Amino acid sequence: MAHLTISVEYGIHCLLWLVGSGDTAMSIRELAELQGISPSFLAKIFPKLEKAGIVAASEGVRGGYRLGRSPEEISFLDIVDAIEGHKPLFDCQEVRERCALFAGKPPEWAMKGVCAIHGVMLQAEKAMRDSLASQTLADVAATFGRKAPDAFLKDVRAWVDDHAADRTGRRDKPAKDAPS
Amino acid sequence: MAHLTISVEYGIHCLLWLVGSGDTAMSIRELAELQGISPSFLAKIFPKLEKAGIVAASEGVRGGYRLGRSPEEISFLDIVDAIEGHKPLFDCQEVRERCALFAGKPPEWAMKGVCAIHGVMLQAEKAMRDSLASQTLADVAATFGRKAPDAFLKDVRAWVDDHAADRTGRRDKPAKDAPS
Repeated sequence: MAHLTISVEYGIHCLLWLVGSGDTAMSIRELAELQGISPSFLAKIFPKLEKAGIVAASEGVRGGYRLGRSPEEISFLDIVDAIEGHKPLFDCQEVRERCALFAGKPPEWAMKGVCAIHGVMLQAEKAMRDSLASQTLADVAATFGRKAPDAFLKDVRAWVDDHAADRTGRRDKPAKDAPS
Repeated sequence: MAHLTISVEYGIHCLLWLVGSGDTAMSIRELAELQGISPSFLAKIFPKLEKAGIVAASEGVRGGYRLGRSPEEISFLDIVDAIEGHKPLFDCQEVRERCALFAGKPPEWAMKGVCAIHGVMLQAEKAMRDSLASQTLADVAATFGRKAPDAFLKDVRAWVDDHAADRTGRRDKPAKDAPS
């Protein structure tokens, strides 16, 4: 099993679609349908993203989620922390104080500062977090934008607009739904 | 819960004592007693460290564990990987191929190279692993050596030697055990 859960993966994929949808709010159902993933799973992730200000929810027939701030201001670290919580790399149990030679009374020198092992782990954790903090949603959206053909990006835009129109009933009904 | 388990913490603490014990093998029981931790827990960790060549086991009354190579050649990454396995930061499920617009047939451009999200995660994982690889048992033992008073290091040495002597029966029995 990986350190980060599948919730992070699903969350980031959703946020990338929201970069593209701009002012058009997308519902959980639409985000799930577009990506072939479970809507009930996404429903657990979005309240966390909203609480962190990464997405903003709106109510009503046109409601759904938009990004809560610009994609340049949403780092991968923001997203990971919002979904997983700030999970430390290492949870120091202060094993050092239990040394049999201290007989239950660890001397001051032994407990001074951070345990050297913990120090190494904190440094590695910082390296990872700094790397995640240096990448934003905008960076990855740009990478994807360079890769995807214009036709695909237009198709996505049309898909999002069509679904939004279906929800708001602003689109002409197709002929087959017309009364005979 | 932290990304790394308590097994890593216990394992590294044990290895640091083995840096100090040098050629004197220490048993799991001694390592557990010295640190006030569970011997049965340690018994699960040491076979993994042995498999990775980080410790070497010897049989018999003088048997136990020594370091398998010099502490300069044992990095924190070696230890973490030995105990936890090479656990990735992120386990990419290739969500990109499931996009509804691809209708089950993702085009070549969409699947080319590593998913951009996965790319960011791989970079963060590398930063963490590089940091762990840059620190060795020798580095941390030196930090501890600078902190601990000489008297404590001598006490530890005496504790290790006394326990080894108890096991091999090479020590004079204390007077109270002499026949009356």
